[in-house]
Amino acid sequence: MAYSTKLTEMFGIEHPLVLAPMGGVAGGRLAGAVSAAGALGFIGAGYGGAAGLDREFALAGDAQIGVGFITWTLAQNRELLDAALRRRPVAVWLSFGDPEPYAAEIRRAGAKLVVQVQNIRGAAEALAAGADVLVAQGTEAGGHGGNERSTFSLLPEVVDLAAKTGVPVLAAGGVVDGRGLAAALALGAEGAVVGSRFVASEESLLSDAARRLVVAAGGDDTVRTRVYDVARDLSWPGEFTGRVLRNAFIDQWHGHEDELAERLPELREAFASAVAGGDFRMATVHIGEGVGLVADILPAAGIVRRLLDEADRALARIPARRGGGAAPAL
Amino acid sequence: MAYSTKLTEMFGIEHPLVLAPMGGVAGGRLAGAVSAAGALGFIGAGYGGAAGLDREFALAGDAQIGVGFITWTLAQNRELLDAALRRRPVAVWLSFGDPEPYAAEIRRAGAKLVVQVQNIRGAAEALAAGADVLVAQGTEAGGHGGNERSTFSLLPEVVDLAAKTGVPVLAAGGVVDGRGLAAALALGAEGAVVGSRFVASEESLLSDAARRLVVAAGGDDTVRTRVYDVARDLSWPGEFTGRVLRNAFIDQWHGHEDELAERLPELREAFASAVAGGDFRMATVHIGEGVGLVADILPAAGIVRRLLDEADRALARIPARRGGGAAPAL
Repeated sequence: MAYSTKLTEMFGIEHPLVLAPMGGVAGGRLAGAVSAAGALGFIGAGYGGAAGLDREFALAGDAQIGVGFITWTLAQNRELLDAALRRRPVAVWLSFGDPEPYAAEIRRAGAKLVVQVQNIRGAAEALAAGADVLVAQGTEAGGHGGNERSTFSLLPEVVDLAAKTGVPVLAAGGVVDGRGLAAALALGAEGAVVGSRFVASEESLLSDAARRLVVAAGGDDTVRTRVYDVARDLSWPGEFTGRVLRNAFIDQWHGHEDELAERLPELREAFASAVAGGDFRMATVHIGEGVGLVADILPAAGIVRRLLDEADRALARIPARRGGGAAPAL
Repeated sequence: MAYSTKLTEMFGIEHPLVLAPMGGVAGGRLAGAVSAAGALGFIGAGYGGAAGLDREFALAGDAQIGVGFITWTLAQNRELLDAALRRRPVAVWLSFGDPEPYAAEIRRAGAKLVVQVQNIRGAAEALAAGADVLVAQGTEAGGHGGNERSTFSLLPEVVDLAAKTGVPVLAAGGVVDGRGLAAALALGAEGAVVGSRFVASEESLLSDAARRLVVAAGGDDTVRTRVYDVARDLSWPGEFTGRVLRNAFIDQWHGHEDELAERLPELREAFASAVAGGDFRMATVHIGEGVGLVADILPAAGIVRRLLDEADRALARIPARRGGGAAPAL
């Protein structure tokens, strides 16, 4: 019961599915459950410290997992990479910044280097840095990403670029159900990264209230914006925004981020208490456009199973070519 | 040699492929050639008048074709719809505005009503107006479109919404090669709309110089912007932008559209002469993100054939499920 690809061969896993290393969502429990289900789990280091990372690795138990970092934060926090490598992850995933300064150390530790890119420029850079796996991330993706390129056309263009090197490419952004997995494979991916669907898993670190919002939301309800980063005092490079669920606060400040930054001293306390108290008129949730396809909270293993079954059905329902001789086997 | 879907059945065509009704690109010659190749061609009425429309219908010869309008322009130009319906198109395609005021007249004339939508809100509106076919258009698409939803997650969400009605959904935005066609079918589409790939066809209305630019461009070279509309004095509703090839002029004014509008009196003459003279430092080309996958100029029939062959290969290369019993037939 598995699709065999370069990804499944590289990591000796059953299914070409990867848990996105979502900070604040993908802890050790979720990453471990995804790997135990035959896919590949990643812990999202997010903005946390070494102690939190150790705790999450411990929660993953014996499962083979990876860990993902926000590349530009590693420059100020290099010891976090060392701490992660001591836990022997099978892969280190770098997003949002130049991977080159960290590539050699990761490889020396025996981990595969996964680099997430948002355009062709970034893909060429990642290949030059020696990435073992490329993740082509479209603007559909929840949380941080680029503003320019979407999965449907970015993915095959990155696949064509990487074909010369043999480096496998994964799809990220928009893959929520098995139709998405099947489409990613059709577009040339060796596997798919799933984020939003696992946000609404039983093992997610997100609060129950936040997961209920995710289940209720439609795909028109998200937006790519800098508002949430400005409100949290996070200095993200300008080319990246975060896709979040819209609410009154996001709608008020989207497009007026500079003014929000100016008024932050007077808003900071209310914002912090909204986040702490789960007041989602002001706090929000990082989530992808595919949220409209998330309708329930499931155990991670059930999500993996459902995605595979749906992919089978999606491929089986593609109408046969008439008069083209024997139908090719799947 | 055809994929049979609800779309091919509805129009009695061989292939689930549709030429996007691109103004200034998809004239009668291209639309006729696409239909003659077993797909469905559409003339793009664009901002033209009834005389131009008559000329293009004549150039399509006996081929069964449709015609596409910019919905919000029809309010000032209703006689154009009457002129088109007299030519007995098999379908009328409405994009960018409420289709309801035109639906009854189109149906009375015996044409199918195709409505292109950019989000779930628009899809619900189109179904309520009695659309026979929905086109889910992602932000990847060249030319005008929405700024919010991308093909990969918009498409399956629209498919789920329309499933209750039996109305077929087509994918638009990002489908340039057969991998895209296969992915569109996997995501639940009954066919795919192809624009950018046909821009670089021999039958395209676009100039040779513009087509050479398209062949040379990469997917990172486009942007969704209002600049080109502001420079052309076109009053597009704020929710729509045009995806164009970037150049010095676009880069200079993108994000500064209000200032461009103010300075238009002094720029108008230089801009008009750049457009007339094909000076692409200032004039530009509407094209989709998938332009990075367009590498040659081909006859329309060759494009249709190639897309189908590539789709076969894309589906055939999806790795078999191991141990899942007999492989399901395609």
